[in-house]
Amino acid sequence: MSINVGLLGLGNIGTGVAEYLRDYGNREGLYLKAAADVNPARLQNAPLPNVVITDDAYKIIRDPQLQIVVELIGGEHPAREYVMEAIDYGKAVVTANKFTISRYGREIFEAARKQGVDVGFEASVGGGIPIIQSLREDLAANTISLITGIVNGTTNYILTRMSEGMEYGDALRVAQEKGFAERDPYLDVSGQDARHKLAILASVAWNTWIHPDSVSCEGIAEITPKDMDFAAEFGYAIKLLATARKRSGRAELRVSPTLVSVSHPLAKVVDEFNAIYLEGNLCGPQMYLGRGAGRPATTSAVIADIMRIARDIRRGIHDDLPSLDEEHELVEDPVCGGYFRLDLKHVAGSLAKVAEVLAKHGISIKDSVQRNRFRREVNGDTVIPDIITVEPVEDSRVRRALEELEKCDRVFGKPFYLRIEDSSDASVGRSSRS
Amino acid sequence: MSINVGLLGLGNIGTGVAEYLRDYGNREGLYLKAAADVNPARLQNAPLPNVVITDDAYKIIRDPQLQIVVELIGGEHPAREYVMEAIDYGKAVVTANKFTISRYGREIFEAARKQGVDVGFEASVGGGIPIIQSLREDLAANTISLITGIVNGTTNYILTRMSEGMEYGDALRVAQEKGFAERDPYLDVSGQDARHKLAILASVAWNTWIHPDSVSCEGIAEITPKDMDFAAEFGYAIKLLATARKRSGRAELRVSPTLVSVSHPLAKVVDEFNAIYLEGNLCGPQMYLGRGAGRPATTSAVIADIMRIARDIRRGIHDDLPSLDEEHELVEDPVCGGYFRLDLKHVAGSLAKVAEVLAKHGISIKDSVQRNRFRREVNGDTVIPDIITVEPVEDSRVRRALEELEKCDRVFGKPFYLRIEDSSDASVGRSSRS
Repeated sequence: MSINVGLLGLGNIGTGVAEYLRDYGNREGLYLKAAADVNPARLQNAPLPNVVITDDAYKIIRDPQLQIVVELIGGEHPAREYVMEAIDYGKAVVTANKFTISRYGREIFEAARKQGVDVGFEASVGGGIPIIQSLREDLAANTISLITGIVNGTTNYILTRMSEGMEYGDALRVAQEKGFAERDPYLDVSGQDARHKLAILASVAWNTWIHPDSVSCEGIAEITPKDMDFAAEFGYAIKLLATARKRSGRAELRVSPTLVSVSHPLAKVVDEFNAIYLEGNLCGPQMYLGRGAGRPATTSAVIADIMRIARDIRRGIHDDLPSLDEEHELVEDPVCGGYFRLDLKHVAGSLAKVAEVLAKHGISIKDSVQRNRFRREVNGDTVIPDIITVEPVEDSRVRRALEELEKCDRVFGKPFYLRIEDSSDASVGRSSRS
Repeated sequence: MSINVGLLGLGNIGTGVAEYLRDYGNREGLYLKAAADVNPARLQNAPLPNVVITDDAYKIIRDPQLQIVVELIGGEHPAREYVMEAIDYGKAVVTANKFTISRYGREIFEAARKQGVDVGFEASVGGGIPIIQSLREDLAANTISLITGIVNGTTNYILTRMSEGMEYGDALRVAQEKGFAERDPYLDVSGQDARHKLAILASVAWNTWIHPDSVSCEGIAEITPKDMDFAAEFGYAIKLLATARKRSGRAELRVSPTLVSVSHPLAKVVDEFNAIYLEGNLCGPQMYLGRGAGRPATTSAVIADIMRIARDIRRGIHDDLPSLDEEHELVEDPVCGGYFRLDLKHVAGSLAKVAEVLAKHGISIKDSVQRNRFRREVNGDTVIPDIITVEPVEDSRVRRALEELEKCDRVFGKPFYLRIEDSSDASVGRSSRS
């Protein structure tokens, strides 16, 4: 049975998917019949014989001869409306749209269930890494206590260059030149992209509805190569981690640049690669590593979804989409280890003053290091950066301490804070039975 | 619709699966109705109320009320006969049996196709790592050019201890004490276990029939901590790799202790962990890391298979098992970089003699190192180990060179040889676009 596919969006990924279907689709009985893009210039991206090209998406959505609509427009409007409309017209949908799935997944899945159609969204997180399918099926026997991953290749590329000494701005420029960062890098460097992906992963892993807004989010723009140096000195790499954790039944959801022990497998994931580390009660710790973006890797995931859905259509069945009906509560005041970088005025008693502020807020210092080689003159004062790592402590205490430190006359400028992830979760590479 | 399960084998894994079904099966409508084991002592391993316990496997295989038979006996006889008979009786089968699947997979799948039943074998390779399902479905759009993995936790544990300076015998003993090695470790340390697993991975990845006997196989018993030291000095770790590679359309299949660059993600997989690294033409390089054995991890995979098959049964469908009908040809004389360790007699011209032998066989020396601190006296001669790494070269040349070196009067004892894996395949951690 031939399966006819319509494609919305002929950008980078759309062109990859169209070319795959053109060149290999018939091996699987898959036929790209129509493709739409508002930008007519894109229609020449790939020569697609026998494909109806249109700038009217509704011609595809409403075409009765198509069984699968592949949405590769991205963003909210009009992608979300197209997806909903395609489902209403009884079409299965495949999408790489993390924004739409993370914000409207629940209603999309519900509509699909009512219509009895499949929705494939493997490509929305981790590119070619089959993390969605693994969580939905292969790890279904497990209770997942932790997902922590590098799910944004742009920031990982930038942080890798910074770990080699490059300043943030230069690293961003290199990433843009190499095509790893957009001209407007905001969604990536702010952590927003990772936030949407984490919401999808946590929703699927816990079969609950996690809105991206319940994920706290910090970006990487304030990190300096100096932080990379200090972190390395303490035995850490700095990575933008997207972390979903259950502690005593409560969920903690966070995207933040984080110090990761160099012995943790995530610390070694460099350049534009993505990796998702997780812990299940049966499978134990696992990590999935691969390319999280780009035309070929994303095409790999989109085509796998199309193949799966085509098989379902031929068998007259459809997938059990996640019901997302489990409850969850958020941890109110998450606890985490931390790293302070403070520019201290080089006068007697500065460090004592800082230690006093931390102690007042119940924060225990673990290590402290001050490096004279980083001393500099600011407005006539000598300033030396002081790095303090602290034992796990509530976020609220850190927040209050930071407020007080910012006002403190011994501290120059804004104090900088990063989280440290070195919980016992990080057990790959340690023997469970030893 | 309730799905009734029968279990063959109540050993370590069988008990894990039985306990899971007892405790959580009803959430999924899965009911363990009967379990068989020839060893009655094992029947007390887990208290299983409402489960018929028998020492007669055929009572389970022929029980008309059971839809799924889970085979966790292992080995060839009688497991293989039970699997075939269960299929003949129209039952779906789930198995963790790498021996039976790798040797009889083709006939098992064929029988299952005829009977219209599913066969799940995720647990046969990589424990809780969903590598079989990923190859069968998630990466289906890809042409896989390389699979190379650490698929035996016992040997990885031993090699990890050896990299810390322990002798092979001591490391094996520790592994046995910790429960990571069997009392008879032959199948693991000889590479046979990995050989069976690699045959399954390559068969699934290439949809062809790869018999384990077409995988060349070397074990780890001859490696010394000295090799670990030298390897580290050259920038390598030593791992037992199971490698399936296609080069110019021909397959190369090998299990061997191998020098892996420390920058390769496989080099950092330590202790009893498994990892499968692969390269697809679309997804690029990927790595899947996790526990490859043990009760919980294997239970995770077995239960995922049971859930998937139960869903198929409820929908009245069955899985498309790999047809394994693609042809393949083997590379006749594989090319690989190499590492020689030779005990040289400490007299003038020894190294020159060795270099002459290598040159004669067309083998180019890359690096050579000799360490006086390892000198020792043997039968009145002073002997110093010499390490030579060589550029990629045909196996046949290495074989002939080794034969000649063994006869050479400057070389004491048997020359030792390891392969080096540092092809351009190992590109995780390098930018594709840079």
